[in-house]
Amino acid sequence: MYVVGFLFIALQLKGEKELASLGQHFIFELYDCNPVILDDLEAIKEIMLTAAKKSGATILNNFLHKFSPQGVSGVVIIAESHLAIHTWPENNYAGADFFTCGTRVDPLIAYEYIKQQLECKYSNYTKLDRGKIEEIEKAAGHSSI
Amino acid sequence: MYVVGFLFIALQLKGEKELASLGQHFIFELYDCNPVILDDLEAIKEIMLTAAKKSGATILNNFLHKFSPQGVSGVVIIAESHLAIHTWPENNYAGADFFTCGTRVDPLIAYEYIKQQLECKYSNYTKLDRGKIEEIEKAAGHSSI
Repeated sequence: MYVVGFLFIALQLKGEKELASLGQHFIFELYDCNPVILDDLEAIKEIMLTAAKKSGATILNNFLHKFSPQGVSGVVIIAESHLAIHTWPENNYAGADFFTCGTRVDPLIAYEYIKQQLECKYSNYTKLDRGKIEEIEKAAGHSSI
Repeated sequence: MYVVGFLFIALQLKGEKELASLGQHFIFELYDCNPVILDDLEAIKEIMLTAAKKSGATILNNFLHKFSPQGVSGVVIIAESHLAIHTWPENNYAGADFFTCGTRVDPLIAYEYIKQQLECKYSNYTKLDRGKIEEIEKAAGHSSI
């Protein structure tokens, strides 16, 4: 009974947390990565598409661009928003971000996969709440005055 | 003389600040916008392309998607990284982000233009430093150990 009660409270808290914002935006900072992979357009494309799929996202389109003399930009547009990466092989660095909505997609699966595939020795991520419900309600209140 | 000295120091500080990271990532939170515009794919496309141009970015490609029953996602891939938007007309909200590098592009021009065009009554932005030079140097130090 206590276990059931605990689970019920936990699910309620999870539900409340999920309703705090319309979207979640994860910022991935990827340092000390393999510069050869960072400069390989086909490898980046494969990694980004696989990362999106593994995280549970529905892919709509993708666009990748190779810069001269080096660097790759890649954006995967998903039904849940986007997954993007920009690489600086000369600095062994890549900056990625994963904007998602709903609860079906897990951006941290993409984070773990990308940093492993890019052979990053040092990384961190930040989660931003996007479209905060309290701000939406506050804004709606302002309008009705 | 004092004025010249002050300007010189100010420019030096500006230069140092610009070198603190490889990129800047602006997060635009746009509340209480016009829901009809938020749901209009062609309008969003025009606004995003114009915003990118006005800010000084070089456009490489763009992709827009209209969701059913409502909402638009749009990504403009630029030579300096990306400008993206995701709209929730049912909540009068749009979340946009502008990832840029270098000093030629001014994302705040895009911010002002987008919020004006979407007729947002309430908005805010956050600037994130991406690819911090001190982290890159720290990571490089870790590698050489």
